[in-house]
This record gives sequence, structure tokens and C-alpha cells, in this order.
Amino acid sequence: MTYCLGIWVKEGLILAADSRTNAGVDYISSYQKMFEFSVPDERALMLCTSGNLSITQAVVHALEQDIKRNATINLYTLPTLHDVARYIGRQIREIQEQDRLWLEKDNIDFQCSFLVGGQILGEPPQLYLVYSQGNCIRATPETPFLQIGETKYGKPILDRTVRYEAALDSIAKCALLSIDSTMRSNISVGPPINMVQYEADSFVIRHRLQLQAGDPYLIQIRKHWETSLRTASESMPALVWNQLSVPMEPEIS
Amino acid sequence: MTYCLGIWVKEGLILAADSRTNAGVDYISSYQKMFEFSVPDERALMLCTSGNLSITQAVVHALEQDIKRNATINLYTLPTLHDVARYIGRQIREIQEQDRLWLEKDNIDFQCSFLVGGQILGEPPQLYLVYSQGNCIRATPETPFLQIGETKYGKPILDRTVRYEAALDSIAKCALLSIDSTMRSNISVGPPINMVQYEADSFVIRHRLQLQAGDPYLIQIRKHWETSLRTASESMPALVWNQLSVPMEPEIS
Repeated sequence: MTYCLGIWVKEGLILAADSRTNAGVDYISSYQKMFEFSVPDERALMLCTSGNLSITQAVVHALEQDIKRNATINLYTLPTLHDVARYIGRQIREIQEQDRLWLEKDNIDFQCSFLVGGQILGEPPQLYLVYSQGNCIRATPETPFLQIGETKYGKPILDRTVRYEAALDSIAKCALLSIDSTMRSNISVGPPINMVQYEADSFVIRHRLQLQAGDPYLIQIRKHWETSLRTASESMPALVWNQLSVPMEPEIS
Repeated sequence: MTYCLGIWVKEGLILAADSRTNAGVDYISSYQKMFEFSVPDERALMLCTSGNLSITQAVVHALEQDIKRNATINLYTLPTLHDVARYIGRQIREIQEQDRLWLEKDNIDFQCSFLVGGQILGEPPQLYLVYSQGNCIRATPETPFLQIGETKYGKPILDRTVRYEAALDSIAKCALLSIDSTMRSNISVGPPINMVQYEADSFVIRHRLQLQAGDPYLIQIRKHWETSLRTASESMPALVWNQLSVPMEPEIS
């Protein structure tokens, strides 16, 4: 599995990804799931991938090849981020069509999904999720984050802390905590964690971070978070028991 | 879906359950998922159920009938909690066998699972999870909690806060937060929340709690928790960016 998330706020974007890939518990390895495709001062694009690794690698390869051979349509030429998301969706469809029959025969999951965030000159920053079927959705101020992969463990913290008006720096910490919480609860998600921060209208990615397993900062925030959660839960207002007048017993007369 | 959890600590047990059942988003209803079967001063038993409602209701009905008709083997006569868990497992198997063919025909999920916690005279308190296949596992000091149903959202907080040596009162708050976090992130889990606390060697359940949707205490702890999480994430040590020497770009030459 994998866990990637993108957060889109007024000040810009955060994208973060773990690096673990597993085909069963006895075949766990580390692969990069985050990619940048940028043209300085004109576009900053970040991708995160989740799902069948052979499919996502083939899609990223196809995206690269289209740039290399100067195809009319590629990540450096498309005029809007919506076009970029749709173009990635078409690549997913094409590669899945090539392999679907063979993978289905052996019941191998060929699903995948992509996060695409960034900004192209003439547009505001945006964040898209491209589904395995090639269609896509966009983050909005009401729901400013999108997740792919093993999403459930890291969702409560985002639900409680992420707001569109929040500062980019504090959002970056939430993203890291969301990934770290997932790593703590599910061994199929693991380090290194890659994270990038993009400031709106900068058209360049200035902030990158890679945290390895034993990174002192990762250990520090984990400890800090664990202590904070424990303190918070202990300082909760006391429970008032016995609100139920009758025991919850079955009717046995 | 449903979310139930049991926590087994040195001082005793906590069991908690939501009450939502859904067959698609357009058929959501409320059903009790927690049941008590106790014999004062001799045994205190608590069950939580998850999965196909027709199966779990039929299992609970069978358990009740065995008591009513004074069957040799029933929840009031079995000598150990392990026997109780295995007996519930046999009931699950029996009822699933009756319905499996008909449900499978229409691709209806007939899986279910049970939490069984409590204490029988002559034994320490224990907590079991009975799987849909009728087999079971027991909580241990290393992993003192067990969950069934929609378990992922509420797991990080348990992973970070629950320890076997922790006080029962603080564990009860963690359980409530785990369920509330799940309700916040997933609409298939919903109120009322039922929770019971059992003190080791008391052989009677003295603490019960039922929280409806708009319950002032539920609103209060949710606010408290949300504020605490935000404060904790904001007070995290500052990120140090640019640890990566090269951008995570694909190789396009």
C-alpha cells in the first residue's frame, strides 16, 4: 500500500507521500511516489502515485517520454491543470488497457490513482485527484485536502485541523502528522517520507523535505504528538456514567 | 458499517459501540450493537456486534434462546470466557451456514464479528474477538485493545494512548475519542454511542453511558479534542526544509 496526500490552501499547496510498496508482507520495498515536472516561472507541477506499481511507473514513464520526444501534448505544454489531470487520466486508461486482461487473469489489482498539484501561469494553484478510471476531481475550499492509498488512518487529523484559510507552515505539520500516524498504525505505509511545499504564484518549488526512518525530527515530532494526545485525552472533561436507567440486556424472562 | 472496540487493562475493561447500520447510503438506521449477559457476583459478560445485521441479530437471538430453554451449554453456564468465545463462534458458523448460499447468490456480504469481554468467577477479566469464521483471538498486555467494523479511523489514537497499565477512567475517554473520531470521518458510523466500564473482580457492571447525537458532553469533548489537536500540531517543532539536495524530478535529459 501507500499513503499520499495533497492539501490546497489559500497560501499554496502541500504534497506528501510515503515510499513503501508491498506485494504481500514478505515483499516490502521502497519506491519514490512523488515526482516534479516544472518549468521555472511558468509552471510548477507535482505528482503523487498510489496503487499497482507497474501501472504507475509505466504512466510516469509515458509522461516523461511525451516530454522527451516533444509531443504536442505533454506536461510542459498543456494550458491548464485540469487538462493535465485529464491527460494523466488518458495515460492511465491506455496502460491499464494493455495490462488489464493479463492482470485480471491472476486476480492482480491493477487499480491506481494520482494526485496532481501545482500552478500554471494564468491560473490559480490547484489540486486534483485522478482516479484509476481516468476521471478526476478537484479540491475545493470546503474540502481542501485529497488523499490516495491507505487513507483512513490519517484522515481524522486532517478533518480536525485542516482549513482553507490556515497558514501553509502549520498545514505542512498536519500533513506530516497524518502520514506519521498512518505509518504508526499500518506497516504497509513507511519511510522515507517526501514532502514539498509550494507557495502560490511563485512558480517554483522552494521547500522540499525527505525524512528517513530514524530521522531525529521524525522521532521528535512523533514523541511530541504522542505526549500531546495523551495529555489532551487525560485533560478531557470527566465522564458522567450511569446515564442509562436500564442495563442494555437482552429480553430473557 | 459499525465501529466497536474493547480495551482490556489491568483495572478492568471498556467496551464501546456506535449504533449505525447502513445498507447503502439511502438506508441508514439505528440498532443496538451492545449486549450484556450477566449473573450477579458470578459473571459479567458484554458483547458487541459488527457486520451483517440479520446474522448478528440471529446469533444474539440464538444465545438468548439457549438461556431461556436452559440448554446445558449457554452464556450463563460456560465455565471460561474462552469457552464463551468458542460457543459464540459455533453459533455464527451455524447461522451463516443456513443463509450463506442465499446471500452469496445476490453477492450480499454475510460476514460478521463479535467482541466478547468480561469475567467469570475463577478467571481474570478477558477480552476476545470472534471472527466471522468462528475462530477467536484474545487481547494481551502488548495489544490490549480489539476493534471490529470500521476500525481504521479510530486506531491511531488507540495506538498512541492505550497502555495495559493505564487507568480505566482515562481509557474510557480514549475509547470515546476513538469512536467520535470515526464518526467525524465516516458517516457509516453514528450515534448513539454506548459504552460500559467493568472493574476487575467486581462481577457487576456499574458504569454505563449512552450518548445521543446532540449530547452536550459529546459536543464538549469533540470541541476539546479539536482544539487540543490544533494546538498540538501548531506547537510542533518547526520544519527544516530543503534537506533534499536535488529536486525529485524524473530523468528527462
